Formats: sequence, C-alpha cells, structure tokens
Amino acid sequence: MSGPTLKPLPLTRERFLPFGDVIEASGTQRQRMNEARFERFDDLCGVNVGADGRVCISVARCRSATKLPYRFDVVERHPLGSQAFVPLAPARFVVVVAPPGESVELADLQAFVTNGRQGVNYQRGTWHMPLIAFEAGQEFLVIDRAGDLPNCDEHVLDESVLLLEP
Amino acid sequence: MSGPTLKPLPLTRERFLPFGDVIEASGTQRQRMNEARFERFDDLCGVNVGADGRVCISVARCRSATKLPYRFDVVERHPLGSQAFVPLAPARFVVVVAPPGESVELADLQAFVTNGRQGVNYQRGTWHMPLIAFEAGQEFLVIDRAGDLPNCDEHVLDESVLLLEP
Repeated sequence: MSGPTLKPLPLTRERFLPFGDVIEASGTQRQRMNEARFERFDDLCGVNVGADGRVCISVARCRSATKLPYRFDVVERHPLGSQAFVPLAPARFVVVVAPPGESVELADLQAFVTNGRQGVNYQRGTWHMPLIAFEAGQEFLVIDRAGDLPNCDEHVLDESVLLLEP
Repeated sequence: MSGPTLKPLPLTRERFLPFGDVIEASGTQRQRMNEARFERFDDLCGVNVGADGRVCISVARCRSATKLPYRFDVVERHPLGSQAFVPLAPARFVVVVAPPGESVELADLQAFVTNGRQGVNYQRGTWHMPLIAFEAGQEFLVIDRAGDLPNCDEHVLDESVLLLEP
C-alpha cells in the first residue's frame, strides 16, 4: 500500500512545544510539600478555557483497543480551549498533532509516542488525531473546557495516513 | 495511649458530599467519544479557582511513605480554591476532612479510604490532613489554584489524632 505514513518519535517537551505541553514529573521546578513527604512538580501545563468556559475534569476509558499500524483520515481541534490527557495507570500512547491554524496539511502532521508516564496537553487549536489506546480498559484523566459554544472542528485529510509502530 | 482516634470509612460520593467530589469512572453520565472507541465519564468535579486565580496542574510524588496508625495534629484549608488529587497508578489512600468553616473541631473530622482508583476533590475551604501515601514513589495529579494571594490556612488541633487502619 502506498500513501503517506507517520512514524512516532519519542515525546519530549521540546518537540511538543508547538502543540502544547508534556505533563510529566521531571525537571527542576520541583518543590517540597507536606513537611517534605512529597515533592511537587508544579504548574506543568497551560489550562485555557477562555472567559466564557469552565474547566471540566473527566475520565475517558478505552472500550476498543487500537493496534498499529492504524489508518486514520480525520483530525480535530478545539478552537476555544486546551485539552489534556493523563493516563491513570502507566501506559504508552501515541498522539498525532499539527500546529494550530485554519487549515492542516499532511506535511504538518507529527506523531509522538509517550514513555508510559507522560501525559499531553493540547494547546487551544492544536489539530490532533482523536485519542487511541493500545488496551481496552485504559483510563485517562481529561482536563478540558465545558461551555455552551461549539468547541470541536473536524478536518478530513486529503489522504488517509498510515500511523506506524514507533 | 488514649486520645481521639479516627477509622477510615470506604469513600463514596454520598459520604464525601459535604467536603467535595469523588473523581471516579462510574455512574450514568457516561458518553461515547471517538467513534465509541472510548466512553467518557464527564464533568466529575467542581474546579473553583476564583476570579483572580488560574488552574494549576502539578504532579506530587511521595518521597517518604506513611504507615498507619499515624498521628497528626494539623489540618489545612485552601480558602480561595478547590484542590484535587488523582493517583497516577492505582493505589488506595486515606484522607481526613472536615467541612468548610471558620474553625474545625475534633468532632468534625472524618476519615475515608479510597478503593484504589478514586481521586478526591476538596471543595474550596474544606479542612484536610496534608496528603499522605503508603508507598514512596506514588504519584498524584494535583489540580488546584495558582495566584498571588495566600491560599493555605493551617489549624493546629486541640489534641493530636491517631488515624487507624481502615
């Protein structure tokens, strides 16, 4: 089969900067808390829900696992707010993203694989493949926006893309 | 040894209502998402950071485990915002809370033990024992308030309390 393919790269904060934040307990901004029984890795992502939205905390549970290689042809964006996914048990997952913008071209897409303990926060407007997981039952905490206005745009790609194993 | 003791009860949404929310994937408010590959348990807690605060996402990692029975004599509250703790790998933990109010009496304290998959969200002003965990290395996602104003009041109890095994 021909056509465009994407091979996920290991996720790092630097690589993900155009798209949002990596949520992980690393780096130097740690503080002690509770008489030093804990260390706190503080303020790991930008939550943006706009003036007319509110922060919404949810759990997404995988009902149907996705295997790689996986073919997709739709990406979506949330024009009014950020959206974060944090695994509730260590598990690698793969994301596909393109920078915020009115349109998205195949050449803009990038794929990343997490290290199993990372979460991601898509900044407002970042195009992304709808979430997939490798095992049924996997759960993610979702931090996004609730509000009255429509907040999901879908875009059908010019060609379907084959997402490869990392 | 004499003195007040507290025995944790299993955490349920109903029992925790005076103190905040239980964050768990259960109940009937689930929706399908991403072509039904996921189910989403939506809007599980009230995030409140006030008009002059912003939502802050952090990770707290346990450096020093706590064993029960455990004696404590301080509770704290965050007068300006809610604070949520969600375990990033399945793990039971114990919380001690008292309802929001100017003062807190020993008789107001209640202890709960989670089922290993639950998180908690303290509503604004809920008195609580500082977080403890049973294993070093355990991580919690923290969703609370960042801002310029002081947002932590401590209260020393009249007597220390012995927190018992559930």
